[in-house]
Amino acid sequence: MAYRFGRKMNTQCMLYTLIALIILWIFYIGLLPCYPVDDGIKFVPNAQYMYLADNTSIQYDRNLPLVFVGGFPRSGTTLMRAILDAHPEVRCGEETRIIPRLLGMQNNWKRSPIEAKRLLNAGITEDVIDSAMAAFILEVIVKHGEPAKRLCNKDPFALKSMMYLAKLFPQGKFIFMIRDGRAVVHSIMSRQVSISGFNLSDPKSCLEKWSKAVETMHSQCIHIGPSKCLPVYYEELVLHPRTSLKGITRFLNLPWNDALLHHEEYVGKPGGISLSKVEKSTDQVVRPVNVDALTKWVGKFPKEVIDSMNQLAPMLNQLGYDPRANPPNYGKPDDEVILKTKQAQNQEEGKYRQNSQKSMR
Amino acid sequence: MAYRFGRKMNTQCMLYTLIALIILWIFYIGLLPCYPVDDGIKFVPNAQYMYLADNTSIQYDRNLPLVFVGGFPRSGTTLMRAILDAHPEVRCGEETRIIPRLLGMQNNWKRSPIEAKRLLNAGITEDVIDSAMAAFILEVIVKHGEPAKRLCNKDPFALKSMMYLAKLFPQGKFIFMIRDGRAVVHSIMSRQVSISGFNLSDPKSCLEKWSKAVETMHSQCIHIGPSKCLPVYYEELVLHPRTSLKGITRFLNLPWNDALLHHEEYVGKPGGISLSKVEKSTDQVVRPVNVDALTKWVGKFPKEVIDSMNQLAPMLNQLGYDPRANPPNYGKPDDEVILKTKQAQNQEEGKYRQNSQKSMR
Repeated sequence: MAYRFGRKMNTQCMLYTLIALIILWIFYIGLLPCYPVDDGIKFVPNAQYMYLADNTSIQYDRNLPLVFVGGFPRSGTTLMRAILDAHPEVRCGEETRIIPRLLGMQNNWKRSPIEAKRLLNAGITEDVIDSAMAAFILEVIVKHGEPAKRLCNKDPFALKSMMYLAKLFPQGKFIFMIRDGRAVVHSIMSRQVSISGFNLSDPKSCLEKWSKAVETMHSQCIHIGPSKCLPVYYEELVLHPRTSLKGITRFLNLPWNDALLHHEEYVGKPGGISLSKVEKSTDQVVRPVNVDALTKWVGKFPKEVIDSMNQLAPMLNQLGYDPRANPPNYGKPDDEVILKTKQAQNQEEGKYRQNSQKSMR
Repeated sequence: MAYRFGRKMNTQCMLYTLIALIILWIFYIGLLPCYPVDDGIKFVPNAQYMYLADNTSIQYDRNLPLVFVGGFPRSGTTLMRAILDAHPEVRCGEETRIIPRLLGMQNNWKRSPIEAKRLLNAGITEDVIDSAMAAFILEVIVKHGEPAKRLCNKDPFALKSMMYLAKLFPQGKFIFMIRDGRAVVHSIMSRQVSISGFNLSDPKSCLEKWSKAVETMHSQCIHIGPSKCLPVYYEELVLHPRTSLKGITRFLNLPWNDALLHHEEYVGKPGGISLSKVEKSTDQVVRPVNVDALTKWVGKFPKEVIDSMNQLAPMLNQLGYDPRANPPNYGKPDDEVILKTKQAQNQEEGKYRQNSQKSMR
């Protein structure tokens, strides 16, 4: 009896030990790639981690679900990214400026068949270039601002390479800002926003160039499809923010958050919106969204430009903006927008009164 | 008794299980960083591995002990990298062409104080740019050729950014090829090697530009110091290959290998030397090193150029080449070099005789 009892315990004991060892083995095998065999090379812990405020580490690579915000400059790209930055899970940050330049450099190699052949001969295949481009872009996006669960990048002209970016980052999503080209051109001309190749005193050529650039981005947006690219009309965003933003959060698989409707309250706060001192749009996004800006361009173009609008900027019509209407009917603002606009006006008036009273004393 | 025996086994069993669990725990804790806590982000295994032929994986990052071979074009940079490629542990491969271009792009940002300020305002600090640049360069070097224990890159003009590369890759080592500028200029002019900014019919300006470019690289080589940068004189390498290469392997912490003295036998072999079809030096490095090329330039420069050599190319004197000697005394070749040269000549003559006999039949 004693013998049998002992043997029973022995078996049980062996079993426990075995189970523990198996679990141990599974862990060891599962984690093995973290300790590659050392054969003379110095192995260094990989640096591709990002640390959140709560010390959570996120391993990052080309499969990060990045958000790219872009479009023609002065189309609400800064507004869009500021709104997204107000979301607690998202960080876009300032324009990086160097990402579109890197994309431009790569574009040049691709366009020259001689150069492409030379690179291929040197082992610089498409895959090698893609790895290098993705690694560069990823480092810039991850490191130029606060870490966040969902990283985003806003460089307006980066979307000229939307198809390429979609290839580099298969989980990437693109928010393509669209705005009435007449308002865009009036804005760049009146604010003297320098864009390389643009003659800021010639509205005709500006409208033509706007149309061509937007066409490039639009066709790529259609090509990568609605699951990856969402066209967002600036006018819709301003007049119907709630509906528009609900659609955007659905598209990005983000939980809804009311902060999106009050982005101006999150400027300069930790985890909120970091604004650039040098970007031209900064002075506008610190205020609540306002509807007045939509039609500022009306009456600012010479008659000959107005008359040939459809020929100059065929994308107007294609995007649904009536090229003959000055202004077209952008729609009516939602009630909450009207209310907010009035409050903002009252506040500004209040400030004005206070200031005049002060100066009268 | 039965009871005690059972209890004894029980204690022993507990002990075994406990030990197994402790080991398990240690492993779990030790390897924990490989499994960051999932909080909504998709975690993807990091792709920064390189696999050797024997399936060893090498984790790579900025601390890889990279070797950079460079110098002015036509200074033996292709010869140097072909010799290193013959070493079983090293892979350099063809010129990437895109690494110097990326470095040039970065140089432009750095030079403009306005642009530097703009980037800084956007969170694009020096650290962010460095991370991105290093990531790009690393991907290109690792992926444009066969994996190897020791990776190397040969892009002649990359060494114009030697100090920057040494900052990006703290374990990097630099082999700076130096050659008599008169031989270099004669070579680029007679072979019509296009270098941007060079007028290939003006020996004066070519000599001046050679001197300036070499000065830039030379001063950086001195700045990062002898543990990181080794100047290698082409003439020394050709006349005294064994001594020269022994010094180079010591500098690179590589084991000596006789393959280095017979690089021409490893062209096109697996793990050997992959040569580009488009690089101008390819036709030369398929042959054994020969000493005839050293003085080919003598008698090819006009008298006025010869007379003002020291003013045109002050780096000649600084590097130890007598600017008034035509040619200077480069030294006598080692016996094994003389033997090899004769063998090569005999082989060529043999081929010539065979060919003439064939054509006489």
